[in-house]
Formats: sequence, structure tokens, C-alpha cells
Amino acid sequence: MDETADSGFNDRFLRACRREPVDRTPVWFMRQSGRYLPEYRQLRQDRDILEMCRTPEIAVEATLLPLRRMEVDAAILFSDIMVPLAAAGLDVEIRPSVGPVIGQPIRSASEVRRLRSRTADLDVSPVLDAIGLLRKELSVPLIGFAGAPFTLASYLIEGGPSRNFERTKAFMHGEPATWDDLMGTLGDLVSYYLQAQIEAGVQAVQVFDSWVGALDPDDYIRFVLPTTRDIFDGLAWLGVPRIHFGVGTGELLPLMREAGADVVGVDWRVPLHEAWERIGFDVAIQGNLDPAVCLAPWDAVEAKALVVLRRAAGRAGHVFNLGHGVLPGTPLENLQRLVELVHERTLRGSAAPTDGRL
Amino acid sequence: MDETADSGFNDRFLRACRREPVDRTPVWFMRQSGRYLPEYRQLRQDRDILEMCRTPEIAVEATLLPLRRMEVDAAILFSDIMVPLAAAGLDVEIRPSVGPVIGQPIRSASEVRRLRSRTADLDVSPVLDAIGLLRKELSVPLIGFAGAPFTLASYLIEGGPSRNFERTKAFMHGEPATWDDLMGTLGDLVSYYLQAQIEAGVQAVQVFDSWVGALDPDDYIRFVLPTTRDIFDGLAWLGVPRIHFGVGTGELLPLMREAGADVVGVDWRVPLHEAWERIGFDVAIQGNLDPAVCLAPWDAVEAKALVVLRRAAGRAGHVFNLGHGVLPGTPLENLQRLVELVHERTLRGSAAPTDGRL
Repeated sequence: MDETADSGFNDRFLRACRREPVDRTPVWFMRQSGRYLPEYRQLRQDRDILEMCRTPEIAVEATLLPLRRMEVDAAILFSDIMVPLAAAGLDVEIRPSVGPVIGQPIRSASEVRRLRSRTADLDVSPVLDAIGLLRKELSVPLIGFAGAPFTLASYLIEGGPSRNFERTKAFMHGEPATWDDLMGTLGDLVSYYLQAQIEAGVQAVQVFDSWVGALDPDDYIRFVLPTTRDIFDGLAWLGVPRIHFGVGTGELLPLMREAGADVVGVDWRVPLHEAWERIGFDVAIQGNLDPAVCLAPWDAVEAKALVVLRRAAGRAGHVFNLGHGVLPGTPLENLQRLVELVHERTLRGSAAPTDGRL
Repeated sequence: MDETADSGFNDRFLRACRREPVDRTPVWFMRQSGRYLPEYRQLRQDRDILEMCRTPEIAVEATLLPLRRMEVDAAILFSDIMVPLAAAGLDVEIRPSVGPVIGQPIRSASEVRRLRSRTADLDVSPVLDAIGLLRKELSVPLIGFAGAPFTLASYLIEGGPSRNFERTKAFMHGEPATWDDLMGTLGDLVSYYLQAQIEAGVQAVQVFDSWVGALDPDDYIRFVLPTTRDIFDGLAWLGVPRIHFGVGTGELLPLMREAGADVVGVDWRVPLHEAWERIGFDVAIQGNLDPAVCLAPWDAVEAKALVVLRRAAGRAGHVFNLGHGVLPGTPLENLQRLVELVHERTLRGSAAPTDGRL
């Protein structure tokens, strides 16, 4: 990174990812450009999400919206984890209040082979163009992202969102060699896509393995960890912070550490200091306020946020975030006050909030 | 319990709940009467679930169906966690492929008071009649059950199934006194309902706090644990095993132990021996095969089941079960073979399966 504080560039987020000293704990929110934000609803209207992602000017505008309302320390590219699959020609649709729906689910070796051939020549230039435009506008780091192979595979196999992931699990256990091919194919896709984003200018990348917490540790080790490790290993030489996130991953945290990211994102189910211990204090951590709590009155949000900060205990390498994406019903004011609270209470030199029980 | 083995009554399940020696590890399945079973689909047809629960002959028949197919060591009363709320006159409907839907969600102090007055005179006689009829038929123990206050409250507040429980959490944090009233009301309802089931003849009870794993440990302690402990404490003198179950509860297991059940049910995310350590080996454990794995070919099911048995390591107090209810797409044959496998491999005097890694 060649940005310095005196250039007006706020590098607090990147420094925390590298576990370097920071003047304040950095904060951003997963899905900070989302339906909770009136300007986002205005921009969105009846537009198709994938079409928005494919239109650089709109993706840029959506990325910038939350930054005009709150002093978050990072921007995250407005996009969707299905974008590279749609770019590979798959029949993908993001249905409002449903989520990604796949026209022809992938459930056989021949369908995996076809996916492999389709992903070989991927055109994600609208995404890369948006990144280029954003870098000219931003004075905070830009985060790029991709869905992780397991989470992408779950949509491809189930055909859409799933509660129990039964087809996915039956597939991995029933046809392990085909599963490995699928993970390899998606792993290559994710690696290529993230590298392209980094070369286009993103200053950090996050891999969303949102649903991997549905697996037990044995299955994670056998069916997910090798591909995930390959992705993070393959990006190491590019020198940008790599974040690894999932929901409900309490039992998987030591394994996610093994996958090799610089920062591990955790939801709210594990107290931050316990999660950090499982990950190892030599890796940075991102989280972990319950997004549902942000719908409560401010006093409750404040109390829970202060607990997170107490548990972080001023250690190097904490990026404040929610434990999952911002929910549509969240009052904007709660997030605005949250950004201020985190910045105020972690101002270097102020009394560390250490009183009270963890 | 006055049943003895030589009366033809199989008390293996009750003995395991009390951590007494057993000739084989007992096994039953949550939702063992469900759509995976052809006879159940036949019985169900277009019938309304709540209507089935209110008709003793049908509830009895549904309870017995799986026992004609597999030598499970317990029967669980065919019912639904919404039954006592429907009996209290609430507008509840179980919509196919959706779940419970509440006509008028409960979101204010006055609505909680109205719920209190409604639940004061509860008529659950059809359920109690079904229990009486079943006890004449069964040669295995009959399990009664209720939804736990948190899980019931989540349906009442959200108005139906929820992914993020944001209204529930906003309510508990925003109006803690009203929340406490709601939990007290539901706690009294659950206590009354379970005691009535026990008096009618059920030989064990399970409290389903299915969705409580959505809470962090702090919220569990403040908003859930006191009521749950009251329920289990209040049932202790009745002398039947009390089972406490939830999904995604890895971080809550030590607190669930504090709630005081005799048996804690665990999903598949935590390896059985680790879960047991968190609960304490002086409490029995129920679980923990991933129900989604049961949709895979038998070899995979067998391998995973043997891992569960290895981790149980022949300790007193293991009830084999899935980590959640049987999924509709499960091949019946897999469950039949699973029952045989558990019984065969845990036959007292046979070599304990201790080889291989845990």
C-alpha cells in the first residue's frame, strides 16, 4: 500500500487488517449499501440486482451511498456473489425476498464439466470498470469480494436458498469425486475473480462462505478446507488483506484459521474474545454485533456494542462490523451513531473501556 | 418407573436418560412420524396438521406409524408445538411448506396480557386422550413435548417462521419488562401443559427450544435461561426424564446444562464428545447425526453414525438421535438400517468401536 495518512486517505481499516496500530478501531458494515438506506431504495426501485451490478455507474453510485451518511472506514463494492456465475452464462436470477434462484441446478458430473468449460472464459469487465471508477472517488479502502465455493455450490445444487442444505450434503457424501471437481472449478473461478478485482484496484478482499456453518468440522475438513486454503494461498503474493467470513461458524473457527486468511469474520453467537482465541490472536478479527439488535432502541445497541469493544480490549487487529449483513428494517440513525460510538470509544489515548464483566 | 424388562416393555431409552446401564444404545428420531414415511403421507393427505393433533385417533395412529417400520426405542406423541397456543384460542395456522403462521402477532404489553388471560383456561384434552390411548398400545416409552418459551415467542412476535428473528430481538432488548411477562406467561403455559401430559401418561418430556441458537450467550442468560430453569425445576418432582433440545446451540450448551434438564439434545455442528464435555458427563446427551446426511447413500450414513458412536465411547447416558428432525426426502431404508446399526454396534459385550480418529 502506498497510501499514507497525510494524503487524506483513511487507511485505518487496512492497518487493522494487518494488525498494525490504529488511531481508532475501524468500522464498516456488511451490506452497508442496502434496503435500510432510503437512497438505496430510490436507486434500486424495480431494478434487477444483477443488472445493477453489471452497470458500472450504478454499482459505483450504490457503493458510495452509505459513505455519504456515515464515516465508515471502508467501502465494499456493490455486487452480488452470483455475479461471476451469471457472467459465466448460468441461468441465475436474484428474486426479491427470495434470493438467488438457479434455472438449471448442477447435480451431475457432466453438469460440473459444463460449468468448468463455461467459467473458462469469464468476462467480468463491468465489475472491474466499477472498481476503477471507485478508486478515483474514494478516500477509504475499497473491499472486493466473492462467494466461497461451498456457499456458491449450495445455491447451484439446491437451485436456490436452502434451510437444510440436504441436496448439497447428500451430493458431497454421495459423489465425493464430483464434489471435488465442483469445488475445484468454483475455487479456480473465485481465485481468478478475486485476483482480477485486486488488479483492478480493490485494496482488500472478503470471501463470503456465508452458509458453511451448516457443516460439521469433519465435513469442513474433508469437503471445504482444501479449496478455501488454495484460494487464500493463491492470493497471498498480491499483498492485500484477505478476509474470510461465515455465519454460525463457532466450531469451525480454528479450521478457518488454517484456511489462511488475514482476517476472520465472526457472527454474534461466539463472544468476540472467545472467537479470537479460537482463531488465534495473531490473526485479525472482524465483527461481531448481532445485526438484529440494531433494530432495537439505541440504548440497547450501544450496550451491546460496548461489550464487543470491551472484549476486543484494544488489541491490534479488530475491525468492528456486524455479525452478518445489515437488515432491511435497521434504522439508519442506529448505524450512524454506532460508527461514532466505535470511533469515540476507541480513540487512542482515551480510557479503554475495561470495566464490567466480559 | 415401574416397568421392567421382563414385562416386555423396552425401557432402554428411559434408562439411558437416567444414565443407567443399557443393553444397547437406544435410538429414536425427532419427527419420526413425518413426510418421509409413505404411510404418513397417506394418513396426512390434505388434512390440517392442527386438526390431526386435535383428533386423538389420528394422533395415535400417526404416533404408531414409525414403530411398525423400525425398532425405535421410544415413541414421540404426534403433535405440534403450536397446539397449546391454538388451544388457548390464538389464530394459528400451520401452512404447508411454510410453517406456523400467527394471524395477530403479539408485540405489545396489552397483547401479552391478553395472551395471559387466554392461556389461563386451557383445554388440551384431545392431547391427553391420545396419550391415554397410546399407553395401552405401546411397549416403548412415550415422549411428550412442548415448544420452549423463546421458540414459541419467536413465532408469536414474528408472525411466522423467521430467518433473523429481528422483531423478537428488537422486542426483548427494547421492552425487556414486557418480554419478561411474555416469557413468564409462556413458561407457565409450558409447565402446565407438560405436567398435564405427564399426568396423562407420557414417560419423558422434551422441550424444543429449536431456534434459541440464534441468541448470543449474554441474551440467553438474561432473556431465556430463568424461564427455562423454572420449567425444568417445576417438573423435577414428577420424576420423568426431561430433555432439552435446540439447534445451533454450541455456545449455549454450558448454559443449557444450568437450565437443569436430565438430557441435552445437540445438533451435528459440535462433535458429540465435545458437546458432552460442555454439558457435563453427569448429564445425558441426545444426538447428533446430521439429518441431511441421511439423504446420502447408506455407506455415508453408516460412516457418520459410527463416528457418533465412537465419540459416545460407550459412556452411560447416550440416546442416539439425529441432530434435528427427519427431513422429508430421507429414504426410509436409511433410517431402518440406522436403527439396526446402532443396536448392533452397541450391543453390550461386543467390541466397542474405538478405532480411528474421533
